[in-house]
Amino acid sequence: MKGIQDYYHDHFAQCYGCGRLNEHGHHLKTYWDGEHTITKFIPKEYHTAIPGFVYGGMLASVIDCHGTGSAALAFAKQQNIELCEHNAPRCVTASLQVKYLKPTPIDGEIEIKGTIAKINERKATIVAELYAGGNLCVTGEIVAVLVPDNFGE
Amino acid sequence: MKGIQDYYHDHFAQCYGCGRLNEHGHHLKTYWDGEHTITKFIPKEYHTAIPGFVYGGMLASVIDCHGTGSAALAFAKQQNIELCEHNAPRCVTASLQVKYLKPTPIDGEIEIKGTIAKINERKATIVAELYAGGNLCVTGEIVAVLVPDNFGE
Repeated sequence: MKGIQDYYHDHFAQCYGCGRLNEHGHHLKTYWDGEHTITKFIPKEYHTAIPGFVYGGMLASVIDCHGTGSAALAFAKQQNIELCEHNAPRCVTASLQVKYLKPTPIDGEIEIKGTIAKINERKATIVAELYAGGNLCVTGEIVAVLVPDNFGE
Repeated sequence: MKGIQDYYHDHFAQCYGCGRLNEHGHHLKTYWDGEHTITKFIPKEYHTAIPGFVYGGMLASVIDCHGTGSAALAFAKQQNIELCEHNAPRCVTASLQVKYLKPTPIDGEIEIKGTIAKINERKATIVAELYAGGNLCVTGEIVAVLVPDNFGE
């Protein structure tokens, strides 16, 4: 399954969270599942906070990348871009809000489901729900902003 | 300079962000500087988002640990605990809010300054300001909750 991150320009594919070209990174992939977006992640044993539970900073990171990836998917759809090679739009995070409802167990896959709550020409708001073992553990809201193709060059 | 993290019980010192016993982690240290709290961090080259700038998830992580560390310092002060060996209180994050004001350059030390905005018996709100090269790049607000000594055992 390809993620939007597979379609970023090489220059935009260096993110520690989701860049396919960052050899130290987590290589998160974000894709559509009907009207929602999905990112999955299997934490390593050492991505811990209190033993047995995932580190909150790691969960914030996954939600962050899921937000910018979901926004990029939404802008691609809005602009009728057929994703091929490296022609995806790229977003950065303007703000991130995370609520830890319960500790997230570390012994399995994590799934983040995204909903495009709002979108205009340059800005999108993504609502995220993070599940472990089918239980909702964390919620998030990300405001992501579209950047020009030469951003940071 | 010792951080509050040096005084956590061994059981609470496994955090990927700030646990002294996590061999893969970042080993952040949070300490008082007058009425404020400080955490410093030097990002690695691969902790990147867009090339040249620090990954937002990493910045959220540092702010998260800075928040729980600052809250632990504040509870120790409130409870008149003289920190020695491993007798520090331990907090977890209930919520985290991060605003990315401008891209954070990756080529230097990052400093996070914390202010204890609110504290009651079990909950503290920490306001964080993240600086790179003396410039305010990111702000954050963390609500941290005190946990019992046997939490997660």
